[in-house]
Amino acid sequence: MTNRINNFNAGPAALPLPVLEQIREEFLDLNGSGMSILEISHRSKWFDKIINEAIERTKRLLKLGDDFQVLFIQGGASLQFCMIPMNLSLENKPVDYINTGTWSTKAIKEAEAQGKDVRALASSEDRNFAYIPYDVKEDGRAAYLHFTSNNTIKGTQWTKFPDAGGVPLICDMSSDIMSRPFDASPFGLIYAGAQKNIGPSGTAMVIIRKDMLDRVPSGLPSMLKYSTFAEKNSMFNTPPCFVIYTISLVLRWIEETIGGIDRMDQINREKAALLYKLIDSSGFYKGTADKDSRSLMNITFRLADEGLEKKFIAEALEHGFGGLKGHRSVGGCRASIYNATGIVQVKALKNFMADFEKREG
Amino acid sequence: MTNRINNFNAGPAALPLPVLEQIREEFLDLNGSGMSILEISHRSKWFDKIINEAIERTKRLLKLGDDFQVLFIQGGASLQFCMIPMNLSLENKPVDYINTGTWSTKAIKEAEAQGKDVRALASSEDRNFAYIPYDVKEDGRAAYLHFTSNNTIKGTQWTKFPDAGGVPLICDMSSDIMSRPFDASPFGLIYAGAQKNIGPSGTAMVIIRKDMLDRVPSGLPSMLKYSTFAEKNSMFNTPPCFVIYTISLVLRWIEETIGGIDRMDQINREKAALLYKLIDSSGFYKGTADKDSRSLMNITFRLADEGLEKKFIAEALEHGFGGLKGHRSVGGCRASIYNATGIVQVKALKNFMADFEKREG
Repeated sequence: MTNRINNFNAGPAALPLPVLEQIREEFLDLNGSGMSILEISHRSKWFDKIINEAIERTKRLLKLGDDFQVLFIQGGASLQFCMIPMNLSLENKPVDYINTGTWSTKAIKEAEAQGKDVRALASSEDRNFAYIPYDVKEDGRAAYLHFTSNNTIKGTQWTKFPDAGGVPLICDMSSDIMSRPFDASPFGLIYAGAQKNIGPSGTAMVIIRKDMLDRVPSGLPSMLKYSTFAEKNSMFNTPPCFVIYTISLVLRWIEETIGGIDRMDQINREKAALLYKLIDSSGFYKGTADKDSRSLMNITFRLADEGLEKKFIAEALEHGFGGLKGHRSVGGCRASIYNATGIVQVKALKNFMADFEKREG
Repeated sequence: MTNRINNFNAGPAALPLPVLEQIREEFLDLNGSGMSILEISHRSKWFDKIINEAIERTKRLLKLGDDFQVLFIQGGASLQFCMIPMNLSLENKPVDYINTGTWSTKAIKEAEAQGKDVRALASSEDRNFAYIPYDVKEDGRAAYLHFTSNNTIKGTQWTKFPDAGGVPLICDMSSDIMSRPFDASPFGLIYAGAQKNIGPSGTAMVIIRKDMLDRVPSGLPSMLKYSTFAEKNSMFNTPPCFVIYTISLVLRWIEETIGGIDRMDQINREKAALLYKLIDSSGFYKGTADKDSRSLMNITFRLADEGLEKKFIAEALEHGFGGLKGHRSVGGCRASIYNATGIVQVKALKNFMADFEKREG
């Protein structure tokens, strides 16, 4: 395994090595079926066990009651941007959105394109999305309040979720689902593209509170209705079997190897602290997000001398640290340290960063 | 590899063993990247090469000119059922459909649910979809003519495509794409869920003639517009990377190991002939589809004594032949013999069937 790099990609991102090894191990013969996971029927007992394991582990890890249902819907978070207003808006009620960056902006755009009465309840656009606008005033009139829990591009994260006073929260948790515990009860719907914290690209995990299904308009196309997926356990048509299989293994790893979400959260805090401590103690690196809004998942930073960033990223890659380039829309540097990135990798990065500073600072 | 079964599943279905072995071989380190295919960025040079290889091979294999574009869209053929009328219908023009079974019926239903002026131009429902209604009269008024090239459940297949006299053909080729050559020029759009002939579940391949993109209404949600996928080489958002990677390897196998679509077609004809010959020469088995409409992909049959079918399927499984049960909606038996099912497996099945007849007949 000496040729594996330390992968700090923002997504698709690193997956736990034991999960990858298990997939490889059983790739030609899944569980005595004599077939690959790619070849088994989604109507088989083997796949039934897999999808139900993924659902049950999700419910246990996030402490979801039976009032929630876990769905898998292809198309990523981007398809959810349009499905949410299509399915869950209500006549004569506004839909509320908080704008904390690129992905929130896209979600808002899709709701507006459908002619919904969109209210931008709060935004951090005035300072280039470098902070979380914690001061949210929801007047209780909205059909839902949508926000993005973690912003991969700007490196910000809600440390405490907004209080919508009874209006169902809807949250894009693509980049921090399963990274920390939270109380799901104020949420009407939670969704996450799989390719950061829970698996490969190719599905969104959608957690819906069952009463929200009553809102689904009957005239929508079958494949765009949450109720279609809810009624058929996400198997109205052939689901993305391999992606769901990998998710079930990642969730097993979180539950059985790591020891659950609380422990995962603790490790994630330790990892982030290592890097933020280095950044804060240095004049050489500088964090880009406000301290009370910093992400535990995506550590965004610049070099005080921005002209050195290209060299930093190139040398890092030579030393086996990949994915440190900031998003093409903002530049700079970013270390994405999702669940699967171990403390060992983060320590190694920290050491490299300290060395680089010593050489170039 | 002794524990691999002979897999006659209808989909997800058998994949070429060399493809599975290559995936396994490079699963922890794709092409010197130091990352798994599950972990690389879709914006990386590695993935760019993969998706472009899948597109180029598709164009070469199907002899598509530059007037066609190859897209990958999540959601399977079922999402296409709704995207097609949404994107490609025209004001004041009917949309024409031919009904040859379960999947055609679903496609029709989705167009009707959108309030489109759907004309059922031909149907084989009168005899339980046991034949292809070759006698199609298109009056030239329609925005498009939709049909299903191969019907997995009923075991029928168009041996010669309908003539729509200039009206763009739209075809669901989920179960026979890449199995035989055809002239793409009358087609406005071809789509196929990947999980039968070209890969695992998790994407549809969509081949669109570029002039059809002019029809896309601007007000549609981004993720439901063909133009969004066409403009961004299917990477408006994160695509299902692993699925596209596997497709690229399957297409490489068809092109380089098999030797192209003509050779693939020849092998597929030999395979089907083996089973149909046995069925026709026996009073013990009987085919369910009319001879001029028989599928080369899904051989559907009954036992003359239907009470023996359960035993047949169970004994077959004991002998290492899986997936022979007919679709739950029709019962009976079905051997799906897509591209990846070799002539060796088909011969072995034929021998088993002959033996079973000898024992039980």
